[in-house]
Amino acid sequence: MSWLDLRETDTLFVRHTLTQSVYKERSAYQEIEIVDTVDFGRILLLDGVIQTSARDEFIYHEMLVHVPLFTHPKPERVLVIGGGDGGAVREVLKHPTVRQVHLVEIDERVIEVARKYLPETSCGLNDRRVKITIGDGIAHVAEVKEAYDVILVDGPDPMGAAEGLFTTDFYHNVRRALRKDGLFVAHTESAFMEPDVVARIYRNIAEVFPVCKLYLAPVPSFSLGAWSFTLGLLRPDFLGKHRKPGPNFPTRYYNAAVHDAAFALPQFLTEKLVLNGQAEENKSTG
Amino acid sequence: MSWLDLRETDTLFVRHTLTQSVYKERSAYQEIEIVDTVDFGRILLLDGVIQTSARDEFIYHEMLVHVPLFTHPKPERVLVIGGGDGGAVREVLKHPTVRQVHLVEIDERVIEVARKYLPETSCGLNDRRVKITIGDGIAHVAEVKEAYDVILVDGPDPMGAAEGLFTTDFYHNVRRALRKDGLFVAHTESAFMEPDVVARIYRNIAEVFPVCKLYLAPVPSFSLGAWSFTLGLLRPDFLGKHRKPGPNFPTRYYNAAVHDAAFALPQFLTEKLVLNGQAEENKSTG
Repeated sequence: MSWLDLRETDTLFVRHTLTQSVYKERSAYQEIEIVDTVDFGRILLLDGVIQTSARDEFIYHEMLVHVPLFTHPKPERVLVIGGGDGGAVREVLKHPTVRQVHLVEIDERVIEVARKYLPETSCGLNDRRVKITIGDGIAHVAEVKEAYDVILVDGPDPMGAAEGLFTTDFYHNVRRALRKDGLFVAHTESAFMEPDVVARIYRNIAEVFPVCKLYLAPVPSFSLGAWSFTLGLLRPDFLGKHRKPGPNFPTRYYNAAVHDAAFALPQFLTEKLVLNGQAEENKSTG
Repeated sequence: MSWLDLRETDTLFVRHTLTQSVYKERSAYQEIEIVDTVDFGRILLLDGVIQTSARDEFIYHEMLVHVPLFTHPKPERVLVIGGGDGGAVREVLKHPTVRQVHLVEIDERVIEVARKYLPETSCGLNDRRVKITIGDGIAHVAEVKEAYDVILVDGPDPMGAAEGLFTTDFYHNVRRALRKDGLFVAHTESAFMEPDVVARIYRNIAEVFPVCKLYLAPVPSFSLGAWSFTLGLLRPDFLGKHRKPGPNFPTRYYNAAVHDAAFALPQFLTEKLVLNGQAEENKSTG
């Protein structure tokens, strides 16, 4: 029997049982690995960090995509930075208003490995509305102006090379790359395990966008407790409610009630955001 | 270095690092163990299953207690079945309307061990409003009629000896033990890891109570994803909203927005409850 130990801290791990090691390579950017596990099925790891699992990728991808796309009044052009596994693109394509999804992924090998070993997440990449650019998402948003309705960051956690995706410089460029009514979302770490990191990223996004909102969903393979996502919005009238009537396509996690509820933050997190100087109002739904 | 492996399935564990083994005994009912861990602090185990951790017991106890007590219009008499660690009692006592908390715990040794090793959870047990009975909660509710405003089951998971806490016979007795406007809550397993168990318990409670509602909160030390709680209510006009104005005492997890949001269920769980023949309406908050 062999194990996959997913790290929470240096002293805390989630231990999966492997059924097989499927594939491993070192690309120009990172180690790419595919393994099969008993409980979570097929898992993609980049430099040993889980990116997606067959068992719960629906939670992550639906919440990353449908919350912003059911917030924007009419999303037509969507940019996905990172996201080479294709799961975010697959969900964006379910929105009938969308005319183009632009995927900017730095590592072509992630896309190729996903096409071969993760057909259920990569299935949308051949859609005629998808444009793929192999390149640096940070450089890309610095070059374009008023080009997208929604920009999604589906990249690695805020450590090492990906740190540039969490700076105010990057967020300023994202803002300029958005069209009127535009909005931006990034996944932003474990709310329970890393609340200080969550609050730091929130502060950076809130510095740049007129409205900044945190929302949560538990993604079991990523971390214990709830995972956080942060929205930056250009429109000041955003109330944290889904665009009515909600999804007219099948979902497994997302629905209209989940959308609105995801913005309710635990008291400890509300207080941490306030302490960070942000007037986050944890809106009562009552 | 030694480990504490908390079991999710036979092939999936959360591996904590121990700093010390504090105490262990075999009582008349079970093995009682206290350990200290690096990441979650002091943990109480019964027969090897985690009951409470210093790091996240606030999430579990606040959500078990404050959701029902801020649903009931005026909770005065509260029964806690199990809950020998005292955490639920501590939270109940924060409600100024409460005149008596009756704790019925089968294993006196759990209370004694908690008094000695878990002062932060057991601190409320000496309050003059607390009545402690050492005995079987199942037999207790079979004997009393219209005695309590709120009945909380803070017992073990639905396996082995505790199975009697999850039968319709038990729920019928709970219903008879409630006063007018009364309500009942139990914690009811991991929504992500054990959705079929959650749906089965829900079906049993819905068979007995006019209104049955599931709500969720991630309790990291208990399981991956969100933990479920099920409410059974005598009043048919319950809308899943907190009693206004919400808590006037400090909390760390619970607040009015969290209360209302906790009733929004992921689509996969909504569908599972509907498939179980229950007209669970996943109320939109929008």
